[in-house]
Amino acid sequence: MNPDLQKERAGASFNPELLTNVLDGSPENTRRRREIENLILNDPDFQHENLNFLSRSQRYEVAVKKSAIMVQKMRKFGIADPAEIMWFKKLHLVNFVEPVGLNYSMFIPTLLNQGTTAQQEKWLHSSKGLEIIGTYAQTEMGHGTHLRGLETTATYDPETQEFILNSPTVTSIKWWPGGLGKTSNHAIVLAQLFTQGKCYGLHAFIVPIRELGTHKPLPGITVGDIGPKFGYDEMDNGYLKMDNYRIPRENMLMKHAQVKPDGTYVKPLNNKLTYGTMVFIRSFLVGESARSLSKACTIAVRYSAVRHQSEINPGEPEPQILDYQTQQYKLFPLLATAYAFQFVGAYMKETYLRINEDIGHGDLSELPELHALTAGLKAFTSWTTNTAIEACRMACGGHGYSHCSGLPNIYVTFTPTCTFEGENTVMMLQTARFLMKSYDQVHSGKLVCGMVSYLNDLPSQRIQPQQVAVWPTMVDINSPDSLTEAYKLRAARLVEIAAKNLQTEVIHRKSKEVAWNLTSIDLVRASEAHCHYVVVKLFTEKVLQIQEKSIQAVLRRLCLLYSLYGISQNAGDFLQGSIMTESQITQVNGRIKELLTAIRPDAVALVDAFDFQDVTLGSVLGRYDGNVYENLFEWAKKSPLNKTEVHESYKHLKSLQSKL
Amino acid sequence: MNPDLQKERAGASFNPELLTNVLDGSPENTRRRREIENLILNDPDFQHENLNFLSRSQRYEVAVKKSAIMVQKMRKFGIADPAEIMWFKKLHLVNFVEPVGLNYSMFIPTLLNQGTTAQQEKWLHSSKGLEIIGTYAQTEMGHGTHLRGLETTATYDPETQEFILNSPTVTSIKWWPGGLGKTSNHAIVLAQLFTQGKCYGLHAFIVPIRELGTHKPLPGITVGDIGPKFGYDEMDNGYLKMDNYRIPRENMLMKHAQVKPDGTYVKPLNNKLTYGTMVFIRSFLVGESARSLSKACTIAVRYSAVRHQSEINPGEPEPQILDYQTQQYKLFPLLATAYAFQFVGAYMKETYLRINEDIGHGDLSELPELHALTAGLKAFTSWTTNTAIEACRMACGGHGYSHCSGLPNIYVTFTPTCTFEGENTVMMLQTARFLMKSYDQVHSGKLVCGMVSYLNDLPSQRIQPQQVAVWPTMVDINSPDSLTEAYKLRAARLVEIAAKNLQTEVIHRKSKEVAWNLTSIDLVRASEAHCHYVVVKLFTEKVLQIQEKSIQAVLRRLCLLYSLYGISQNAGDFLQGSIMTESQITQVNGRIKELLTAIRPDAVALVDAFDFQDVTLGSVLGRYDGNVYENLFEWAKKSPLNKTEVHESYKHLKSLQSKL
Repeated sequence: MNPDLQKERAGASFNPELLTNVLDGSPENTRRRREIENLILNDPDFQHENLNFLSRSQRYEVAVKKSAIMVQKMRKFGIADPAEIMWFKKLHLVNFVEPVGLNYSMFIPTLLNQGTTAQQEKWLHSSKGLEIIGTYAQTEMGHGTHLRGLETTATYDPETQEFILNSPTVTSIKWWPGGLGKTSNHAIVLAQLFTQGKCYGLHAFIVPIRELGTHKPLPGITVGDIGPKFGYDEMDNGYLKMDNYRIPRENMLMKHAQVKPDGTYVKPLNNKLTYGTMVFIRSFLVGESARSLSKACTIAVRYSAVRHQSEINPGEPEPQILDYQTQQYKLFPLLATAYAFQFVGAYMKETYLRINEDIGHGDLSELPELHALTAGLKAFTSWTTNTAIEACRMACGGHGYSHCSGLPNIYVTFTPTCTFEGENTVMMLQTARFLMKSYDQVHSGKLVCGMVSYLNDLPSQRIQPQQVAVWPTMVDINSPDSLTEAYKLRAARLVEIAAKNLQTEVIHRKSKEVAWNLTSIDLVRASEAHCHYVVVKLFTEKVLQIQEKSIQAVLRRLCLLYSLYGISQNAGDFLQGSIMTESQITQVNGRIKELLTAIRPDAVALVDAFDFQDVTLGSVLGRYDGNVYENLFEWAKKSPLNKTEVHESYKHLKSLQSKL
Repeated sequence: MNPDLQKERAGASFNPELLTNVLDGSPENTRRRREIENLILNDPDFQHENLNFLSRSQRYEVAVKKSAIMVQKMRKFGIADPAEIMWFKKLHLVNFVEPVGLNYSMFIPTLLNQGTTAQQEKWLHSSKGLEIIGTYAQTEMGHGTHLRGLETTATYDPETQEFILNSPTVTSIKWWPGGLGKTSNHAIVLAQLFTQGKCYGLHAFIVPIRELGTHKPLPGITVGDIGPKFGYDEMDNGYLKMDNYRIPRENMLMKHAQVKPDGTYVKPLNNKLTYGTMVFIRSFLVGESARSLSKACTIAVRYSAVRHQSEINPGEPEPQILDYQTQQYKLFPLLATAYAFQFVGAYMKETYLRINEDIGHGDLSELPELHALTAGLKAFTSWTTNTAIEACRMACGGHGYSHCSGLPNIYVTFTPTCTFEGENTVMMLQTARFLMKSYDQVHSGKLVCGMVSYLNDLPSQRIQPQQVAVWPTMVDINSPDSLTEAYKLRAARLVEIAAKNLQTEVIHRKSKEVAWNLTSIDLVRASEAHCHYVVVKLFTEKVLQIQEKSIQAVLRRLCLLYSLYGISQNAGDFLQGSIMTESQITQVNGRIKELLTAIRPDAVALVDAFDFQDVTLGSVLGRYDGNVYENLFEWAKKSPLNKTEVHESYKHLKSLQSKL
């Protein structure tokens, strides 16, 4: 092992295994996770190839092959429930994208949520066995965010009892669904339902797109790959164009809405139930943010412990770059953020499961807040993580730019999270809508509960002027609880500003909708502050639950750093409304430096505790053993350009030389 | 043409051609630039292939071929001066990376700056004609920033009058030089010079690495490609390992330092002169930031004018997404930044040429400030641009993630700018060193001049308490001059804080160097504030120089937006030290919204004025004619995965189906 890493590990103030157990939820969970991982990782069929040296077609092929093996292993291990498949398989094992992934994450869950028992009987077994490989085709070339704008039509023909599917325009071509390009033979297609001459809006249809047995596109279907992207090379995101393509009436998912054989439309009892999948995926993405950021931190921190450069004291050997204050300032706040998001991710998972159970019992009361919270936190954590992964990459200097670091792949695989499953700005505005509703509710004299309950205190705070003078002295920058209060006051203030600006615009403008648009900068800002408060609050609460002293101590430092760093970065928000004073901000900046120094000895142990295996990280720089440079040379020699001593292009150079 | 873009262009308040002339420097420059561009663009040999569909080896090959054609065209057009080649060829024409680029940008300039007349006679002609293809090999696997740490040795042997070159360790292997992997046959190698038993530090040597005629690596040379990277697929960044490799004494570049035939070392007269190339490249990179950001803005703004989505008023057709305040807030401050950086880039180019002329006359007085300014502005503009390109990409939603947008390529080609030619944090600390020196100078009673002259006023401001109360009312948020003053005060305050914190650390710590490290967060912050001030100041001054009223009006709005947005984003800095009041910050936020509305009708004309040709943008989304969707479908069909109806991987799926 690299001597620097050995020294770092020996000098840590805590046992990383105990912290790993906290992250997994229990020692038993850690054991189980490793058991599953080893099942795959020790299998010779499943050794990590280095995808970086392959073309896109090769990467796609390797991914399909791996999926095939993976499905068999999962079956062997007895993981069958869709949620478990997602939480265990996608999260802990695979650092690559699966062309058949959508079959499990979208096709089967939608079938379960929206299909009748008969429909589930017909399609569920064969889709679990991958005889049917399904995907979920919603987005169109011209339509993403605005579902009502989708143009694909499904027109019912009572004579044949079929739906006729059409892509009437170029912009209506289904675009982006994963696995659609080359892999799937079925798709759940979202289309505008027309029956008896009337449009009833979007409904879901099971559409066969390729012939079973030959895998050839069926007549009336135009299907293919949408071309190369920033990342997701292994994924055949696809397009689908349908021309008078007929499917039986029974292929409409009819658990909620129905079309009778004569064409009569029966509307669903409750629309809210379809929120389920969306809320599940978004709450899952909060955890994805945590995992991606944790990986990036692991690589950057380990490499910073191994890399020596420049000098602090002249004449002495080059120090580890982790000893530079600027490097600590780049990485440790991100490490603190990774822990914050790990705990928020775990909270979201628990909350989703709890509320989902309530929904099962017909209790929908918590759904609006959960919906608002997942939307906002999905946006907040993914934006932060997106920037943070790149900060980790650049903290590795030149080598971070090489695929040897593994960081470019982590980034390009993560970054679509900011724009898919609800574009982030749109998500923030959904949260804002809930915040504005809650604000109005408080103003009309009704109390609100949950994470927004701070709004209940708002009117009284504003009318008692002495409070304003009292606040600043109340913030104790060494108390996570007190800092949580400061974040709460900031959120309350920004929610109030947004609400008042919205009110002003409503008075000046014709419509509420135009006023909403002209206040949207303030609304997004309010949502961000609300989410930031929620993260600080959840992190603070989590630290208090930890029994083991050594673990609590190190997490408390990270929690303080996370909270203080946020204050320093948004100092304007905390100075305004007199939440904090100028001299407190100065103290915050000083305290951050002390925390960097205090966290320094534990940095490597803190990333070790994430317990990513090398093969999962896919990084030469981030290896657990820290053997970077020799491995880097070995890695580079595999470059396709090195296959021949003299590259073919030499003939161009030669022809050039002769002409000049 | 797309009707939305037609409408946008018809509604603009100014003629974009006039603004293009401002950006180019004169109508004559615009004419000349287009003349060169058309020479290339209308040539059938040089049509834009879509590199996105090619493998890395294919992309490398296409790039070499294009370079070959390009060199011939340039020769035909009579561009021979290295600076002209760089300013004209790289900047305005090529949106791809050239394997032979280093020959022109580094090999030839270094030969000119550090080679004797005899050496230039020997190598210059053949390197201009690409018989010799040179690169510049400085960075090693284990050493980037810290030049003194480089390990490669060049030991003089007086018996044979040769230098013996060695790569003594794995970390000493030369790593990263562009064109080294497969293209070059010579490299200028930086190595520790040993003669007469003593080390004299780094010197430059011309090292043949491949045999002329066969292009095979020479005995003693191990050379190859370092493997795939985030971007720069076309570039064969390489490694070089030398084992007792001998070169004649005459291959050491001896314009400044020399080794006599007997091994006597003669030291150079002036060390500062070697700064030249570094300062040139960094000032060039400021312009590169401007160009990359301008391209990204062009694509995102045009697409936002063409894309319709969701609704502002219910029941009305989907609006252009450019009508959403949040979209304007994402893009217009970046557009303003692009203009700011364009003018800063032009200023840096002028200043470099002016000071370079002074240096030619032996006047080195302005070199320290130029060095500090290029370092800081390189870092400031590249960090900002890096984040901004990604913001533009994400503002295009899902399609921004596809290579059809052109934005991923712009990003991955630009982002190394943050870590190469001086890692950005290191650059900021170099600027800080100059700021601290200037601060000390003022404190010891001497005035400073140039961009830091505001430090002269600092002590008086601090001891007159009534000033503090006077400032806030002085800031007029509608006056660019007044805002420049606010930025100046912010910079002065942060420089002072850094200086005082540094002083405090010096008192508490043993060494100045440790104190420097423990203040480095503050030092970077001070440098950033200084650079921000310089950009605001230069933009403001530029606007005043514009004669044409319509152009001045639109640029003035952008300048105001740039300045106010920076204040809003860094409100804490402006509230502290009472530079501005809380109510002024509120006014700033309100004024920003007004400016977004005011800029909206000119947005498309403002990106048209950058005058990038479609082929240079390489983007389906950013096309001048706005014909996005049909083109997108055509583009996607070229995807390599679509070459066969059924992909080969289907056999894996089939085998999987049979096993489940």
